[in-house]
Parts: sequence; C-alpha cells; structure tokens
Amino acid sequence: MSEQQTESAETDDSIGEKLVELAKRRGYFFQSSGAYGGVGGFYTFGPQGAALKGNVEDAWRDRFAVAEGNMEIDAPTIMPEPVFEASGHLDGFDDMLVECPDCGESHRADHIVEDNTEYEDAESLPIPEVEEVIAEYELVCPNCGAGLAGQAVETFNLMFGTNIGPGDSQPGYLRPETAQGIFVEFPRLKEYARNQLPFGVTQIGRAYRNEISPRRSIIRTREFTQAELEFFIDPETDEPDLSAVADVEVRLYPASEQNVEDGEEIRTTIGDAVAEGVIASPWVAYFLGVAKRWYDAVGVDMDRFRFRQHLSGERAHYASDCWDAEGELDGNWIELAGFSDRGDYDLSKHAAHSEDRFTVFRQYDEPKTVERATVDPDMSYLGPEFGGDAQAVVSELETLAERDRAAFEGDSVTIDLDGESHELPTEKTGFAVEEQTEAGEHIIPHVIEPSFGVDRLVYTVLHHAYREDEVDGEDRTYLELDPEVAPTFVGVFPLQNDDELEATANDIVADLRDAGLSVTYDDSGNIGRRYRRQDEVGTPFCVTVDYETLEEREAQRASDTASGDAPRAEATTVTVRERDTTAQKRLPVSDLPELMADLRAGELSFGELDGKNES
Amino acid sequence: MSEQQTESAETDDSIGEKLVELAKRRGYFFQSSGAYGGVGGFYTFGPQGAALKGNVEDAWRDRFAVAEGNMEIDAPTIMPEPVFEASGHLDGFDDMLVECPDCGESHRADHIVEDNTEYEDAESLPIPEVEEVIAEYELVCPNCGAGLAGQAVETFNLMFGTNIGPGDSQPGYLRPETAQGIFVEFPRLKEYARNQLPFGVTQIGRAYRNEISPRRSIIRTREFTQAELEFFIDPETDEPDLSAVADVEVRLYPASEQNVEDGEEIRTTIGDAVAEGVIASPWVAYFLGVAKRWYDAVGVDMDRFRFRQHLSGERAHYASDCWDAEGELDGNWIELAGFSDRGDYDLSKHAAHSEDRFTVFRQYDEPKTVERATVDPDMSYLGPEFGGDAQAVVSELETLAERDRAAFEGDSVTIDLDGESHELPTEKTGFAVEEQTEAGEHIIPHVIEPSFGVDRLVYTVLHHAYREDEVDGEDRTYLELDPEVAPTFVGVFPLQNDDELEATANDIVADLRDAGLSVTYDDSGNIGRRYRRQDEVGTPFCVTVDYETLEEREAQRASDTASGDAPRAEATTVTVRERDTTAQKRLPVSDLPELMADLRAGELSFGELDGKNES
Repeated sequence: MSEQQTESAETDDSIGEKLVELAKRRGYFFQSSGAYGGVGGFYTFGPQGAALKGNVEDAWRDRFAVAEGNMEIDAPTIMPEPVFEASGHLDGFDDMLVECPDCGESHRADHIVEDNTEYEDAESLPIPEVEEVIAEYELVCPNCGAGLAGQAVETFNLMFGTNIGPGDSQPGYLRPETAQGIFVEFPRLKEYARNQLPFGVTQIGRAYRNEISPRRSIIRTREFTQAELEFFIDPETDEPDLSAVADVEVRLYPASEQNVEDGEEIRTTIGDAVAEGVIASPWVAYFLGVAKRWYDAVGVDMDRFRFRQHLSGERAHYASDCWDAEGELDGNWIELAGFSDRGDYDLSKHAAHSEDRFTVFRQYDEPKTVERATVDPDMSYLGPEFGGDAQAVVSELETLAERDRAAFEGDSVTIDLDGESHELPTEKTGFAVEEQTEAGEHIIPHVIEPSFGVDRLVYTVLHHAYREDEVDGEDRTYLELDPEVAPTFVGVFPLQNDDELEATANDIVADLRDAGLSVTYDDSGNIGRRYRRQDEVGTPFCVTVDYETLEEREAQRASDTASGDAPRAEATTVTVRERDTTAQKRLPVSDLPELMADLRAGELSFGELDGKNES
Repeated sequence: MSEQQTESAETDDSIGEKLVELAKRRGYFFQSSGAYGGVGGFYTFGPQGAALKGNVEDAWRDRFAVAEGNMEIDAPTIMPEPVFEASGHLDGFDDMLVECPDCGESHRADHIVEDNTEYEDAESLPIPEVEEVIAEYELVCPNCGAGLAGQAVETFNLMFGTNIGPGDSQPGYLRPETAQGIFVEFPRLKEYARNQLPFGVTQIGRAYRNEISPRRSIIRTREFTQAELEFFIDPETDEPDLSAVADVEVRLYPASEQNVEDGEEIRTTIGDAVAEGVIASPWVAYFLGVAKRWYDAVGVDMDRFRFRQHLSGERAHYASDCWDAEGELDGNWIELAGFSDRGDYDLSKHAAHSEDRFTVFRQYDEPKTVERATVDPDMSYLGPEFGGDAQAVVSELETLAERDRAAFEGDSVTIDLDGESHELPTEKTGFAVEEQTEAGEHIIPHVIEPSFGVDRLVYTVLHHAYREDEVDGEDRTYLELDPEVAPTFVGVFPLQNDDELEATANDIVADLRDAGLSVTYDDSGNIGRRYRRQDEVGTPFCVTVDYETLEEREAQRASDTASGDAPRAEATTVTVRERDTTAQKRLPVSDLPELMADLRAGELSFGELDGKNES
C-alpha cells in the first residue's frame, strides 16, 4: 500500500468524532499507553475491536487464502538490512520532513503544502520545489505558527530501525510491508507450490511505518495490520478466470479521468473494463472484482466505495500499475487497499542481491532444438601465449561465440583484453555450433499484489455502520454491523438480579455458544440500558429471560409431573429483540440455537420468524 | 515467561534434527531470509506451520478467553520508554554477555558456565562470581576456542530498541512480553469489566527478546508469539472454582524437591496439591488444572509433561511464585508456559510511574462508619508565624492527626519541620475527630498470569507427534497430529490425471469445505507419493477418487435413466485412508461430509465406520 494521496487535511469529522468517542467508551479502540500521555500513531484494540478485527481477518483468510487455494505463511516482523537494500526501501522509502525553527516539532512538508495551497500531490514534487512553495506561500508551523520559509526540507526514512544481537554490527528493520517476508522466501515457497505457476502466498500481520505525523485515529498509524496476497504468475501464459467476476459492477476512477478537468468516475463491469482497456492487467481486474464483493460482504457501504487508479507520480517505486480501493468517510476518500502490478521488480531485485534462485522453470509445449555456438580452446596454445590471462581469454571467446558467430569465420579471431586487441588462430579456439534440445527456460515470475489495510477497514466498517435514531422518544446510537463481523452476535440478559433468572440465562448462553455463536451475558443495570449498550456495540440480537419464562416453566413442570412425563422445555419462551428495528418477539427457548444460527447465516430474517410480536 | 533454566546444552537431538528437516521440506517452519544467509533467532512458518499455529491459537482462545469469559485485546508491539521504566524491564531485563577476545563473538556467559561446569543455575550467580568461574575452569570461546579468562562479563538488555518519530527524542522498545500492553491499559480495561473483580484479559501476539545466542530452532527465538492471560483478582475475597479442576491429575516438581538430593516429582491431583500446600495459590492451581487438560487436547504427550516450580533465584523480578509447564524433548525439559503469581507488582509500578488510577473500588458488605482525625488550621495565625513554610506546617499537622491523635490532647502541639521542632497552640490547629461513612476502599488488584509460548508449543506438538514405522516394506514417517490442530484434516486425490476423476475430486473438495473442514487437493505424482506427503504433513485422512467411482456413477446414471428417476449419488464410493493405521475403506461420496465432520469432532472412530475394508 502506498501513501494516500486524496486523504487531505484533518477535517471536522462529525461521524468520525462521535465514532472515536464511542470506540473508546465501548472497547473498540483507543490510543495506547494513555497512562503515560499516549504516543502518536499507536492504538490498542479493546475487546470489541479485537473481535471485529479478528472476524475481518478470518473473512479475508476465507476469501483470499482458502477459497482461492493460496498458501498462508507467517514471517517475522524484524528483517535484516540486506533485505531492504534489495527491496529499495532503505533508499527510497522516505517522507519529506520540515522542522519548525521555533518549537522544534517535525512536520510532513508535503502535507503542509497540500493543506495550505492549491497543490494536490505535493509528495511527487522535487524537494527544492517544496522548499520554494513553502517560502512563496509563507507557510507556518501548524503547532506554533512560526514561519517555515528557509527551513530545509529533508528526506526521512520511514522504517523503524533496530539492532539484532549485541552491538550494532547487524542492523535490522521492522518490515514496512508484510510482502517482503514472502518475496525473500520465494525460493522455498515455489517448492511448496511444486514449481507450478500461478500460485499465491498470503500473510496477515503487523507492518510498521515511522510516520512523521500520524493522524486520523487508526487510519494512519505507525503500527498496523496488513493482509497481503502476493500472486506469482507467468506473464506470458497465465490468465485469470475472468468469467467468475466479469459481471461485478464497479465504480472506477482511472488516472486519465483524474488528469482532465471535469474528469468523471466510470460505472462499468469488470468484464467491460478489461475489454475496453480501462484496467490494463486482467489479473488486477480479477482481484478488483473479488475484492468488491468481499468488501460488500463485510459491511462497507457500496455507495461510498470506488476503485481509483494511481497517477504515475503517485505510484510506489515497485509498481507498474496500481488501483486503490477507496472508502468515503465524512467527505474524504481514504485508501482501503492497493492492487498493484509489481511486475518482476521484487524477485529480480532479490535475485540480484542474493545468491538464491528466484526463477521458475517454464516448460515448453514441445522441447525446442536450438543451435548454440561454443568454444573449446586449446590450452596448450593459450597457456604459453597468454600466461596468467589465459582464463580471461577463454571467457572472452565464450562471450564472443554467443554474440557474434561471424567473428569465427576467418582464419583468425580478434579479441579485446583490457583494452588491447589480440589475434589468435581460429583453429585453436575449438569453435563449433551444436544443436541442443531444451525442455524450457527459467523465468522470473511477475507479481500481482492485492494489499489490504485491516485497521482502516475496521474503521470504515464501523463508520459506515454508525446510525442514530430515536426510540420511544429517546435518542439512540447503534452500529448496524454485518453479523459476519459483529464482535458479538447475541446478548443474553436475565431481566433482574434473581438466581433463577440468572441460571436460566446462563443455560441459554451455554446452548448458544455450543451452536458456535458469539454470545455475551449481561446482568448489570436496567434492561433498557443493557439494550443501549448492545446497540452501541452493534450486537444484532438480544435475548431476555423474564418471569414469564419462569412461570411457563413452572406450569410445564406441573403438567409434566401430573402426566408423569419427563420435563420438557418446548413451551418456555424468551423475548428476542432485533437491533436495527428494536422489534421484539417471544420465541421458544428450545428453538433458539437453530434460529439464531439461521439468522447469522442469513438463511432467515427476523421479520420472517413466527412468534408473538411484542411492543 | 522467564528464561528456561533446565534447557541445557544443545544436544544431539535425533527426533529434533529429523523434525527440523521435515519442517523445512514440508512447509512447517524454516530460518528466515535464507537467501541472505539467514539471521539467528528468526523463523518463518510455512503454509503448514502457519495453519498449525493458527489452530493452536484458536484452541487457546476458545479455552482461555471465550470459555473462561475473559476479554481479548490487541495492543501494539512498540511501546514507549516510560512503560518499561515502570515495569522494571529497562533496568532488570538483562543477560550476561562475554565477548571473545579473539574472534569477537558474543556469548551468554551463564550458558558457557552451565555447559562446561557442574553449575546448574549460573544465571542466578553474581557477575564477579561468573568471571571467577570462567577463569578457574579456563573456559573457552565455543566458536574459536580462545580462552575467556579475564574477559569482562557484562549485562546486556534484551529489549530491541528503536526511535519513534524523527530523531531520538522518543525512544521505544519492542515489548518483551505481551503482558505490558494489558497492564498499562488497566484503567480503561477495568471500565469494560464494569469495575468488577475478578476479570481476565487475554492477548495473543508477538513479543521480542534480543537473545545473545538464540538456539534450538523455534524454541528460543528473538521474535515469538505469546498467548497470555492476565487475571485480576481481589486477593482477599476472590476464590477460583477449584471444584472444576480438583480431580485433574498432575505431575509436580516443587522447588523443595529440586533443592534436595534425590528429590522427586509428585504425582497428585490439583485438589490435593492445594489442600496439602504444595501449590500455594489456589488461582495458580486452578489454571494449572485447566492448562493440563488443554495441553492434552492439543496433542502434548502427557507422559512427557510436568509442572515445575521455579527456584527462588530463578523467578522473574515481578513474580512471587511461578510454576512452569514443561515438555520433554529428546531428554531435555523445556518450558512451555509459566504460571506466575505477580501480586500487585505491575499495577503498583504503573500507578507509581503514571498519573492514572490502577485501583478497583472494593465495596464493603455494609458501609463502615469510621472516625477520622482532621485539622483545619487557623491560617491568620500560621501565615504571620511561619511565612512561606505555612503550607508545610499544614501538611505536617494533617499527617500527625492521622498518625497520632494523642499529640493534640495537650494545649500545644509539636511538629517537625526540616529537622527543627516547632510548638504551636492546639486551639490554632482546628483539630477534630469526625465520623465518616465509607462504602468501600480502593485496592490494587493482584495478577495471576498464565503465559504460554506458542512457537515452543508448536514445536513440542510436532515433536510428540513424530512417528516412524514401516508400511509395505518401506520406511514411513508420519505426524500423528490431533485433528483439532492438524493443518489439513483431509486430502483429496484423483487417482490419475483424468478430467473426469479431477472434476469429481474437486466436487468432493467443495462439499468437504462447505462442511467446515480444512481440505487439500493433490493431483501430482503417484498415489503412494501423495499418501506419504500427507503422512509427513500429518493429515488424518485421505480420499481417493478412482475409476471404480466413475463406473459406479455410470451404472447409477444408466439405472436412473432407465427408471426415469433423477440422478442420485448414493451408490458412488471412494477410498478413504486413515493416516495412523493406513487402513482403507470404501465409503459413499454422499456420506463423506457428515462422516468426516464426525471423525473430526471425535464422535466416531475410523474403525467403527461401516464400509468395505480394503488392503
């Protein structure tokens, strides 16, 4: 994922602000180490947030690893320096930093420019130009108001550095993307894939960026979770199954439309977008289609969702093309995922910097017979003639034979050795042209990368689920979370503090948990307060055990005893309340596990349930 | 988790060595960044290892978070320096380091002593003594053989350090235990628990220790995964439900037995161990009981499992008592988990170092009326009399009133101010004794911590599952993994490369996945090779689709067409093979999802299945 361009200045974010307050109060997320004043860019997910995040990760794993047949791995977050020399992060993973001469605070120079001028993509400007803009517009420190004109703008590497082992002889870095943990292990991973392209490798894990100005809650943090898929393809022969996503409708904002005045988003299908060349790579298009459906399923509002192509100046150093999935939050588009065509950039770099093989053998349909020009020099001639340079002459002859067979057509051959020409008899070179049969060739696979930000998605899902309404004349806040990701599916309450009510409620909790549902038990405060609490948490259903339940059971027991039958629970009912409508129905206790499981699976809606409606 | 004492020298570890080779070949785990020569102490979990690790984590979550009703959170791995000043890690989390004067390699001094002398617990020796032992025994560098006598032994902090933001004004550290991410957030977490003790908070995540000499594969690494539960109790009133685990049989090795010659392990039950005082804390005992059952369920061999109490010199700086769960591997006992009574150490430290409240309000059964002695000094007297010291006099009077009411009985009161005595008239102090009603008091909870190492457990589960036998005259290696944790539950193979066999196999894969099972499809190599591959991965069952399957279907179709009925699949069968016995049975395709789900849930054994036995 590259930096977010359209995420502009901090705005007065009304739902966002309320959400951040709710998130803290209800245990979704909050800034870490608050007891020590907190540190910018580090957030802790509380019980609800950790559950929501875990559900999102599981849903991603089901879709992008299991259903696609890809392998998931789990690599360390600290990696040694040579990895990032090769990947380009050590040199190229920088932000522009300007320090205030007065208060000493550091700021992102490009953000200050974007926030206070008409420049929209300051990140892609050369540093001297940014310095000029700061001077020209007399831009000031956002912290203390001191003028920044004349301050040097410097590059700042965004990787967190550390030392492995005692001393500083072995520098290491916290990975800026989970991807590198996959790329460096390609030589082994291809064996697990039995050397057959295409194959994909996924990883869900922490990544780190030492942002100069982390901001907007959990949207831009210094430590975050990525879910990445690195899909390795043979660029000449592998094609995706586009038919599976051809009819997925998408809202696209290509670079060409962003570059012109009055440029517009395009509403089309994945199939048409590929056919018309709007999306260049069919593989990227395939994953956009899969992703669109997936985002819909986990609760992103499709009316506030689009795919935007990166402008050429905005692309990361490794990407030849990139589309972002974007979600709209209070009027700002933020990046949720990036879908990059990384070409052979990464594997080529690691091949060049290490000793290992980052290739896959591509078998020809038919073995090919090729002519190869070879030499087999007479060393009894070369030795006395060239002494210590004899081996260098052999190398030169080999290179020449490959490059220029005609050079060996005359009686003598001329080679260059350290800038000096030497002539030697062709008959001493052992030149020959031989036919060789080759079964295939070693190629460097290309990489298609769908890279998802998990924290940003959690934030967006919550934001898009945030609702306010009025119930019984009182304001209510609730989260309309999809059952697949909601931290809790059902809350179970005894109406009052009463041993028998509590015991019955606890039995129901156990039965629902056995049915694989996520359940919370709450006996604290009046029932209205407990409903509000679950509404704010986003729990789709609540079950209340009241005295009617106990009376029904008593009546049941009496009749059972009278008839001599064993006790039955069928006639015992509880109140079930739906979060979104606040509608209530009395339903039999014995049916609850099955009904709730059907509701969760979406095989049934609450409105369809038989049961006495309650006010 | 503290350092492992009984994990002694690297041994010739026959199963361990074979396991490490298998793990690499089959995708369980391998040293990371091998293309760059690797870095000690960093491992990557391949596809099988990541799945096994994920299953172990899920099983832990089910047992220690969900079933116990605890909250799970997810905190950052980087934390700011003040956290570790408070926790004691900045000062006290050190190892002893000795550098070779010849080759320059750093070693753990205590390990060199333990490996080459009769000292067993060198970690607890003072540094000068370790230097003496090195000189006395003429110990040498394990790398180059140079003498180490006279080399300084130094302390080395095991935390990985980094800088947050630009410059070095805000140092941060990678957390050495996930626990601190819970402790620092206690003021907020207690609100989520509605200020009611006891409550527990869990976290599964990365922790980091910059080991001087990481060793033994994934047993002691520099980056690892912990699953920790911090259980907060009122030490005076909260008691565990010991009845739930009283009859769990355990093998205990208390400190008292380790301290005497011929000391022996004790075989007893949790209930008896508490009753007889072998385990001092009933809470620690409760979690030992829960853990024993859990380790058994995920596949640790109970004949190679025990709980060992820490010796007093071995305990971490925060623990008042600690028991380790230990697993035996090739003759060595290694620590799998630690169960510490951390007392109020952590919360007290954070309370002292920060501004936040780390207490919980303990309500009295009945409100208490208490007498409080107070002062209300006459400032118009104190001001002129004491000038700038007047406020200090007030403080002194307040302290004195609380401490010693009798001091106010006479006409004058004597106080100390910077070592000087001052006398003032009692009537000017406004001394009074008042009755106050108090509903309760603020207490600092105690912490019971079950702390599990996930990587070590993954290693132990694999090691204890490693089997070699002979099948049809050929050597076979297989992993007898428990179905709950095995990366794959069933492998599905078409007998040969044939479109119809492959399509049928793929249909079966889809049906089994729909039933919630983890399935792998393999069509590469002969069928015997595929069985061996799944044996080595530890897949409990394999399903093979052969020509008999297709013939049965053809016959079925013909009879259906003749009878005019819709096609049925009931009569179509496949071969199902059990990993451990290699027994094979033909079973109906239509029954597979249910049968496999029952086998996984342990509700059925393969031997009980009806079906034609095959050789």
